[in-house]
Amino acid sequence: MLCVNVELQERRYPILIGSGLLQDEPNYPINQGERVMIVSNPTVAQFYLDTLTTTLEKRGAVVESVLIPDGEKYKTLESLNLIFTALLKGNHGRDTTIIALGGGVIGDVAGFAAASYQRGVRLIQIPTTLLSQVDSSVGGKTAVNHELGKNMIGAFYQPSLVLIDTLTLNTLPKREVNAGLAEVIKYGAILDYEFFVWLEKHIDDLVALKQDALQHCIARCCQIKADVVARDETEKGDRALLNLGHTFGHAIETHLGYGNWLHGEGISAGMMMAAALSEALGHLSVSDVSRLEKLLARANLPTVSPDTMQPEDYLPHMMRDKKVLAGKLRLVLLKSLGQAYVATDTDHHLVLNAIRRCTQTD
Amino acid sequence: MLCVNVELQERRYPILIGSGLLQDEPNYPINQGERVMIVSNPTVAQFYLDTLTTTLEKRGAVVESVLIPDGEKYKTLESLNLIFTALLKGNHGRDTTIIALGGGVIGDVAGFAAASYQRGVRLIQIPTTLLSQVDSSVGGKTAVNHELGKNMIGAFYQPSLVLIDTLTLNTLPKREVNAGLAEVIKYGAILDYEFFVWLEKHIDDLVALKQDALQHCIARCCQIKADVVARDETEKGDRALLNLGHTFGHAIETHLGYGNWLHGEGISAGMMMAAALSEALGHLSVSDVSRLEKLLARANLPTVSPDTMQPEDYLPHMMRDKKVLAGKLRLVLLKSLGQAYVATDTDHHLVLNAIRRCTQTD
Ligand SMILES: NC(=O)c1ccc[n+]([C@@H]2O[C@H](COP(=O)([O-])OP(=O)(O)OC[C@H]3O[C@@H](n4cnc5c(N)ncnc54)[C@H](O)[C@@H]3O)[C@@H](O)[C@H]2O)c1
Ligand SMILES: NC(=O)c1ccc[n+]([C@@H]2O[C@H](COP(=O)([O-])OP(=O)(O)OC[C@H]3O[C@@H](n4cnc5c(N)ncnc54)[C@H](O)[C@@H]3O)[C@@H](O)[C@H]2O)c1
Ligand SMILES: [Zn+2]
Ligand SMILES: [Zn+2]
Repeated sequence: MLCVNVELQERRYPILIGSGLLQDEPNYPINQGERVMIVSNPTVAQFYLDTLTTTLEKRGAVVESVLIPDGEKYKTLESLNLIFTALLKGNHGRDTTIIALGGGVIGDVAGFAAASYQRGVRLIQIPTTLLSQVDSSVGGKTAVNHELGKNMIGAFYQPSLVLIDTLTLNTLPKREVNAGLAEVIKYGAILDYEFFVWLEKHIDDLVALKQDALQHCIARCCQIKADVVARDETEKGDRALLNLGHTFGHAIETHLGYGNWLHGEGISAGMMMAAALSEALGHLSVSDVSRLEKLLARANLPTVSPDTMQPEDYLPHMMRDKKVLAGKLRLVLLKSLGQAYVATDTDHHLVLNAIRRCTQTD
Repeated sequence: MLCVNVELQERRYPILIGSGLLQDEPNYPINQGERVMIVSNPTVAQFYLDTLTTTLEKRGAVVESVLIPDGEKYKTLESLNLIFTALLKGNHGRDTTIIALGGGVIGDVAGFAAASYQRGVRLIQIPTTLLSQVDSSVGGKTAVNHELGKNMIGAFYQPSLVLIDTLTLNTLPKREVNAGLAEVIKYGAILDYEFFVWLEKHIDDLVALKQDALQHCIARCCQIKADVVARDETEKGDRALLNLGHTFGHAIETHLGYGNWLHGEGISAGMMMAAALSEALGHLSVSDVSRLEKLLARANLPTVSPDTMQPEDYLPHMMRDKKVLAGKLRLVLLKSLGQAYVATDTDHHLVLNAIRRCTQTD
């Protein structure tokens, strides 16, 4: 088992990473007679709810659960209210613990429920997708969507513990695993050349869900994100680097309609566009760009624009991005592999050219 | 103008108290071009929305407003969502300011909206009921109700400024003013004998809404609550004293159905029951009890149980109170006027007797 500590201004919390943690009851900080409410969805519950319940009951916990429907479109105030209703029907007080068992959607909704039920109860995150294990479980962001905008309603709320059982990835659709690998590769590209090189060596093991490689990889990603978050809790500076590929990727997600490409898939193609632009600006070598491309391709990720999208389709979406300030595009680009920076006011022609270079041409 | 500072672990914020502050634009920390969203209801808006808007526009603010229906029964997630919709339709970003203009209901809903819109935007409270001026504007509690419980969903979220314009009380129904005075008298009774004596001298001025008396009184109450909150942000100890009369009062509110007696009216009769019990326990003299009774009566507040409620009706409600621990009643009682304490496990016969003594007998 590996342990990464997230150090915050006010307190710290551990992220435990291992195979079989769902069954490993000593890791659960629950006392005899304490109440817990597991929040999950039917997809995840069918695999893991019984196991987790049994483990918690061995600790003496009084366990209840509430399922919300599966999918990003249920990341809403209504789902939040389902959780509150379950808590209130069960007469849960401020001393209850909410456990989020699922991917990023469950983590975000259950996290916000924990932040706001009786103005805050204890939260334990058990992320079960690679994306949620390397990204959403660190940083304390929780949210639900509004019909007029994604993640518009939420809170900063830290869990007291994150438990990552890497065996849960065995049931995750491969496409979701790969999408998570896009974020993994992103960490190497923006901040950690050594990790990038490690990924070049071990990407096949990760795709094959080899447990040792997964654990090392997830721990490294959590550590990188934890460091960034600790340096920049308020999200003004450094944290922006985590958005490599995201401005392009969001344009893809928006243009195709959410859910057609997975988030990680958009990020993958988007990172290639950012890399092409970085090369045009003289930072990356052609071989750097090709190393990134190969790594993404080995994770079965797209490295070019969707064929139903034209290069001209990007900029209008990109200019509506939250990171646009005073009409000026702010893009995360690469100085080198392992070193990202924020570029402001990049020439739109260069941007368009970079997108063109990442467009299917057959 | 008076100023009370609320000192918190992380930061402080000022409460400004004066006549005509709604028109006094230098007090508003808004810069040229900044956006604000005023949250109010139709009842309050008809009197004060235009004035406040004009003042803010003089500061150069870009002002929008959203009204939610008037009443405790609209203190819901749905009303919260109306606010989010208005913010998103107007494209408000994290740099917007939410201004709560209204009583405790508006303060609680708008406060929670500010806490959760994009995970937190700036909040200014402009409380317009006496109750919200002396109570809900201090302490940072925000909440909405759930059909299964009051104030069950919310956040601790501090405003950056509270502006109390005592002239707004001129349009408040007298019954609401008096209900606010119950909480005012409570502060004297639990923690400040000198203030209690001051109230005995000035209660008629307060009932008549004399501006000087009101301002002194509100400032004193805010200071007392701010001190308690600063000593006990997490609500484990001292803060309990603020509940003098509340366990009895909640029993009245619940038994009659919410809204039949105002909260302050229930608290008033409840304080008399607590005082009678304190006397039976040998702490208060008969003349102390009668001083409290006279003061409440001069504020036109009830000092006896509603005539549709029997003494035996109380205890079942009281035993469901949040403050009941392990089946034992915890009551705030008085050692003397100006000094409250928490009594645990008080004999139920004594409690019943005290209620009997505060029952109409003709
Ligand atoms: N809070 C943050 O900092 C943060 C960061 C990144 C993303 N997010 C959010 O995370 C969400 C995306 O998360 P996601 O990619 O995990 O999506 P997701 O939660 O929708 O999970 C993807 C799919 O996999 C299923 N699933 C989850 N675990 C499984 C398992 N072990 N076996 C089988 N199926 C499983 C889910 O039920 C779902 O159908 C988005 O809403 C995004 O906004 C939040
Ligand atoms: N957050 C806290 O710490 C805290 C503390 C105490 C009470 N509360 C909450 O406060 C609420 C009660 O507050 P309230 O007593 O102010 O009730 P309220 O907000 O419902 O106001 C009472 C009535 O007066 C009207 N009104 C308000 N200001 C007016 C004015 N100047 N002129 C004319 N009419 C006016 C309102 O529209 C309403 O009809 C409850 O929901 C309670 O839970 C919160
Ligand atoms: Zn991402
Ligand atoms: Zn009260």
